[in-house]
Amino acid sequence: MFDEHWDWLSHEFRQTISSIKDFVYQEIIPLETELRNTSFREMLPVLDKKRELVKELGFWLPQIPKEYGGMGLSLQEYGYVSEFLGRSSLGHYVFNCQAPDAGNMEILIEHGTDDQKTRFLEPLLAGKIRSCFSMTEPDAPGSNPTWLNTKASKENGNYIINGRKWFTSAADGAEFAIVMAVTNPEQDKHKRASMIIVPTSTSGFNNIGNIPVMGSQGSDWGSHSEIKYDNCTVPETNLLGIEGEAFTIAQNRLGPGRIHHCMRWIGIAERAFELMCERAVSRRITRTAFLADQQTIQNWVAESRAEINSNRLMVLDTAMKIDKFGTYASRREISLIKFQVANMLQKVLDRSIQVHGALGMTDHTPLAYWFSQLHV
Amino acid sequence: MFDEHWDWLSHEFRQTISSIKDFVYQEIIPLETELRNTSFREMLPVLDKKRELVKELGFWLPQIPKEYGGMGLSLQEYGYVSEFLGRSSLGHYVFNCQAPDAGNMEILIEHGTDDQKTRFLEPLLAGKIRSCFSMTEPDAPGSNPTWLNTKASKENGNYIINGRKWFTSAADGAEFAIVMAVTNPEQDKHKRASMIIVPTSTSGFNNIGNIPVMGSQGSDWGSHSEIKYDNCTVPETNLLGIEGEAFTIAQNRLGPGRIHHCMRWIGIAERAFELMCERAVSRRITRTAFLADQQTIQNWVAESRAEINSNRLMVLDTAMKIDKFGTYASRREISLIKFQVANMLQKVLDRSIQVHGALGMTDHTPLAYWFSQLHV
Amino acid sequence: MFDEHWDWLSHEFRQTISSIKDFVYQEIIPLETELRNTSFREMLPVLDKKRELVKELGFWLPQIPKEYGGMGLSLQEYGYVSEFLGRSSLGHYVFNCQAPDAGNMEILIEHGTDDQKTRFLEPLLAGKIRSCFSMTEPDAPGSNPTWLNTKASKENGNYIINGRKWFTSAADGAEFAIVMAVTNPEQDKHKRASMIIVPTSTSGFNNIGNIPVMGSQGSDWGSHSEIKYDNCTVPETNLLGIEGEAFTIAQNRLGPGRIHHCMRWIGIAERAFELMCERAVSRRITRTAFLADQQTIQNWVAESRAEINSNRLMVLDTAMKIDKFGTYASRREISLIKFQVANMLQKVLDRSIQVHGALGMTDHTPLAYWFSQLHV
Amino acid sequence: MFDEHWDWLSHEFRQTISSIKDFVYQEIIPLETELRNTSFREMLPVLDKKRELVKELGFWLPQIPKEYGGMGLSLQEYGYVSEFLGRSSLGHYVFNCQAPDAGNMEILIEHGTDDQKTRFLEPLLAGKIRSCFSMTEPDAPGSNPTWLNTKASKENGNYIINGRKWFTSAADGAEFAIVMAVTNPEQDKHKRASMIIVPTSTSGFNNIGNIPVMGSQGSDWGSHSEIKYDNCTVPETNLLGIEGEAFTIAQNRLGPGRIHHCMRWIGIAERAFELMCERAVSRRITRTAFLADQQTIQNWVAESRAEINSNRLMVLDTAMKIDKFGTYASRREISLIKFQVANMLQKVLDRSIQVHGALGMTDHTPLAYWFSQLHV
Repeated sequence: MFDEHWDWLSHEFRQTISSIKDFVYQEIIPLETELRNTSFREMLPVLDKKRELVKELGFWLPQIPKEYGGMGLSLQEYGYVSEFLGRSSLGHYVFNCQAPDAGNMEILIEHGTDDQKTRFLEPLLAGKIRSCFSMTEPDAPGSNPTWLNTKASKENGNYIINGRKWFTSAADGAEFAIVMAVTNPEQDKHKRASMIIVPTSTSGFNNIGNIPVMGSQGSDWGSHSEIKYDNCTVPETNLLGIEGEAFTIAQNRLGPGRIHHCMRWIGIAERAFELMCERAVSRRITRTAFLADQQTIQNWVAESRAEINSNRLMVLDTAMKIDKFGTYASRREISLIKFQVANMLQKVLDRSIQVHGALGMTDHTPLAYWFSQLHV
Repeated sequence: MFDEHWDWLSHEFRQTISSIKDFVYQEIIPLETELRNTSFREMLPVLDKKRELVKELGFWLPQIPKEYGGMGLSLQEYGYVSEFLGRSSLGHYVFNCQAPDAGNMEILIEHGTDDQKTRFLEPLLAGKIRSCFSMTEPDAPGSNPTWLNTKASKENGNYIINGRKWFTSAADGAEFAIVMAVTNPEQDKHKRASMIIVPTSTSGFNNIGNIPVMGSQGSDWGSHSEIKYDNCTVPETNLLGIEGEAFTIAQNRLGPGRIHHCMRWIGIAERAFELMCERAVSRRITRTAFLADQQTIQNWVAESRAEINSNRLMVLDTAMKIDKFGTYASRREISLIKFQVANMLQKVLDRSIQVHGALGMTDHTPLAYWFSQLHV
Repeated sequence: MFDEHWDWLSHEFRQTISSIKDFVYQEIIPLETELRNTSFREMLPVLDKKRELVKELGFWLPQIPKEYGGMGLSLQEYGYVSEFLGRSSLGHYVFNCQAPDAGNMEILIEHGTDDQKTRFLEPLLAGKIRSCFSMTEPDAPGSNPTWLNTKASKENGNYIINGRKWFTSAADGAEFAIVMAVTNPEQDKHKRASMIIVPTSTSGFNNIGNIPVMGSQGSDWGSHSEIKYDNCTVPETNLLGIEGEAFTIAQNRLGPGRIHHCMRWIGIAERAFELMCERAVSRRITRTAFLADQQTIQNWVAESRAEINSNRLMVLDTAMKIDKFGTYASRREISLIKFQVANMLQKVLDRSIQVHGALGMTDHTPLAYWFSQLHV
Repeated sequence: MFDEHWDWLSHEFRQTISSIKDFVYQEIIPLETELRNTSFREMLPVLDKKRELVKELGFWLPQIPKEYGGMGLSLQEYGYVSEFLGRSSLGHYVFNCQAPDAGNMEILIEHGTDDQKTRFLEPLLAGKIRSCFSMTEPDAPGSNPTWLNTKASKENGNYIINGRKWFTSAADGAEFAIVMAVTNPEQDKHKRASMIIVPTSTSGFNNIGNIPVMGSQGSDWGSHSEIKYDNCTVPETNLLGIEGEAFTIAQNRLGPGRIHHCMRWIGIAERAFELMCERAVSRRITRTAFLADQQTIQNWVAESRAEINSNRLMVLDTAMKIDKFGTYASRREISLIKFQVANMLQKVLDRSIQVHGALGMTDHTPLAYWFSQLHV
């Protein structure tokens, strides 16, 4: 829903959102059919062309400050944009604000040395390379980020990394990884780990393979890898920020990252809602009645509308608070939006799929794919 | 929750809200115990004293324009106030913005003749009398307000009203009723009924009795009456607005009225949340652990916080839209908040009562009363 | 629903159930209106007459073995009966199988001395007196029955009891209480408390008053008291069972007690379902359509039917297991039915009240009363 | 859960169930890993070997009468078996009671001519061929089976079939289809369609392709096809049952078919429950605590157990009623189990996946696959 009532936004910004929305519907959504019949890797050329269009329109890197070539939007403004990009699973990629690159860019801007910025940040901003974030481990719970088994020991000016990671998203085809590893095991649990930049071409960085999800291993940006670090050695200068500060850096990213995700989910919910309504008014259940004539369907539409609206307001309110008061002052709000928006998305997707009947399970709509990704 | 982050509100208005909040907690909530052991009628003297304090503080009639002696708040501003008044079931009454008087004041301001304003509106605004709104009928569904059986026939410059109403709230002790009755049965269903002012002392206005709810008939403002109109005769000049326009007038009241109710419900939810948290951190479940140590309780607190916050944002957003664009342009939002906020309230009350255990069922907290009123 | 398909029950027993059902609908349900306009105490004479009829029909004490004058039903058979008694909040009382007397009878049969049986059990079985069970304390969590502050010290052949209890249901008018008190504080927490019979006329047994619930303190069997034990002294011979075994005795009662409660709840749910259906097919929403024509109502009816049926099967299955294999072997099933049936009841009551509209809140149906008692 | 308390079942039958359970866990579940890395078609040889083992054990065709070579189980008995087969998505296939063949066998037994039985039923029972059921159409709602656009016109002793079907499951590799087509368009809507046997080698039977679901088109039994009938001509003797009776035949199949499906779903739920529990007690969340120590997880386990148990009882009760009183007398129960069991399955799968974290989304467990198939 593009809301004609958003008059607290400047006229100019509303035009921006409106143009981005049009771009998503005209240039990106039509690619979805193609994506379903091919692999992500094979789509790279056509996606690159779309990226060029985005650059020409001035919408490249919406979340990044102007001095780094982005649009310089506030977190709240970016929230409005992200929702429209989320209408398609390709939206963020085309605007170069996809996870995990968006987060890695932020970390590099905040904590990278000049040399790191030149080597890793610049090509990332330009869309010439991709990156990954290597944190989750198969033997330690993702819900407890202070528990890591991967170690980086310092020797002769190098870090030697050993350990196993999995669900390192988009590692396939990435140029470098930001790896979370324990460098200071003797410290307090929040001060043990560091972030280290590891080019994927480094010897000892072994991509064991993409993890099969729903019978498919995916490819390139659309994949999740298992990585084995086997005496993987990089120079000390690849340390990102201060040693032992990985947890703090990650915490600070969490707030903005959650806004990005939640607004993307709201975009998915809006698309599912749109498809549900279109189906309801066009599908006959008898020769004289449509699905939309059934009260159950009407209830689902009303409940979905209310849930999407209230969730959007909550996420935008949180974004505004982060913009104004910072992540720490907004920590309660940040902690609330995750489960709330995730629950909403599951309900809306479920209803939309049911309204589509058998069609909802096929790859003729993006609904089944999104439903299968709910727990990622 | 009084949110220190509401910095889009003026400094002055934030002080107003803060003072009103303090008043509710210091002057009104302590009366609740007394109310449980007596009747509403018996409490009138002490409530009148509180009303005088409110007048002195300048908070009388927060929802009414300044030219009529009120605070002149916008609907959105009043929303913030109403939430704090809603912390206690006596809050709105003490500030003279309780239903159904608040709605009746609005109708009289908008549609009353000078004479009607002098006789009915002025004492109502002054808090000298109370009123009721007589619409719901036992034999016609409340969900279909165009279906009314009560009739008002015109004869010799009078309306002669016949019919039966029930759930006429606060009729016991009211000085006058605004009655919805069919005056133009031959018209289209949206043009049949009129609003007529009927002093309760009129012959033929028969209050059959207060309807027993939870074993109690209540009294005065805290009651719901059944009324029989038996050749109840009032002069034509008691017509409120244009003949046949009752439905339109009622529709226009609906938006603001719903904001009032929903913000009051959010106030109830906040109070229930507050009581839940206090109980959780103070009630031991073993000699070393508190209720708050249990994850189920933690989940309830988190979910309740998220649901209250998102609902508040949705209602305030709707109020802002009505302020800016009018009721018609905001009709979708108005229709959504009712079921959404009602569902939220039921969940939060249920959790709070469960956290209180047996105590939650007693009259030592207002929770059981609110739970029993959920479907009113 | 009386199910004509219950052909695994003997022909004779099906006739019994059918007669009991008829009795409830013809003799007990019509009393409900009267109950709402008076107190329980004032209804005692008319209830006593109904009890005489029950005795004549041979349905007195359905849950009690034949040698003690009951019907001698198995727990599963009693489950079928209890469901029909539960159709009215007076049902169990009229058949003398109401809580807490039913549980107290069981304990006395199992653990009482001959003298205790003569003095306390016999008049209880005969319906000449009532009793109460005094366990819950205001300062200790009911969910942790091993934590009791009330103490009984032994001195000169007597127990001297000191402590505070509340929510001692039906204490008002009871002839004696079974009190849980700590007699062996030095023992393991499951071996500390004993059950002691205390006639309510004993000096030091102070009924502080009935706890107000929904604005009413209730009376007689329909009340919950706060009791202060103040050097309340009874002879050692009033010990019920073995000293220190109160917890074990209580645990053994839990299984059958839960079947009783759950089948009563299912009876309430069936009555609410019945009222919902009657209302749906008789209440017009327009001049041509009924509530039952709305798909939302149809969904509620279908979901309620499925939930009641599956819950009934689960409770009867648990009763059958207790009958065959005992309480310990059935402990998993016993622990499941409580929350499952309680959740079902809340949903069904909520839907039925909503279908009744404003009427659902009044005392014209038992729905609002049951809803207000959900958390007891 | 194999319940040691099912003592109403004969000793012999309990041994049968127990053996079948062992077979599923020892012979079938280990194949799942292989299935995820290959196609169904490539697994046919290994599945055929398992089928031979089943024949040797005497468990072949559990749902089919003895005179046709099956085990001759009642519907309720088969319910117990089907639940254990449902533990794996390959279970029913290995025992030759998979949809849609099981239903087609029943129809052929009931309505087939001797010649049809020889040509189509016998090889189906022997497991030498497979079949499909061609009913659902893309342009007509599946929820309204009386609305079919596919037509079969009679000419020169033949039926000439024209129309489009989709979601014809398992058509890929099937030897014949049972096609629902309109033969008597002038009749009442319940008397228009007939069932016609169409060998898939018939000219004019065009399998357009398997419908992509979750990025995969599947193969053989594990697929859903779109079929175009283009002047597809078969002799009149291929009519199954009486002309115009397709709807009645389908209706009669519905009851038993729903028992099959629901017990299979309960089997899936039990497997998901089992995996959830194993994960909860083995996955550490800190160095000293396991997932199972969290109350949220404990709640999920308890709720899932209660929901699975009550749903199983409801389905078995329905099966028993169909066995005793027939489909028509059990129609209410049949209509209830579908949505109730489907809702339960979604909840249990969702919880189990969440307990597995990232692992739950991978193909290392069958959970994600089942979740993605929820709306099929």
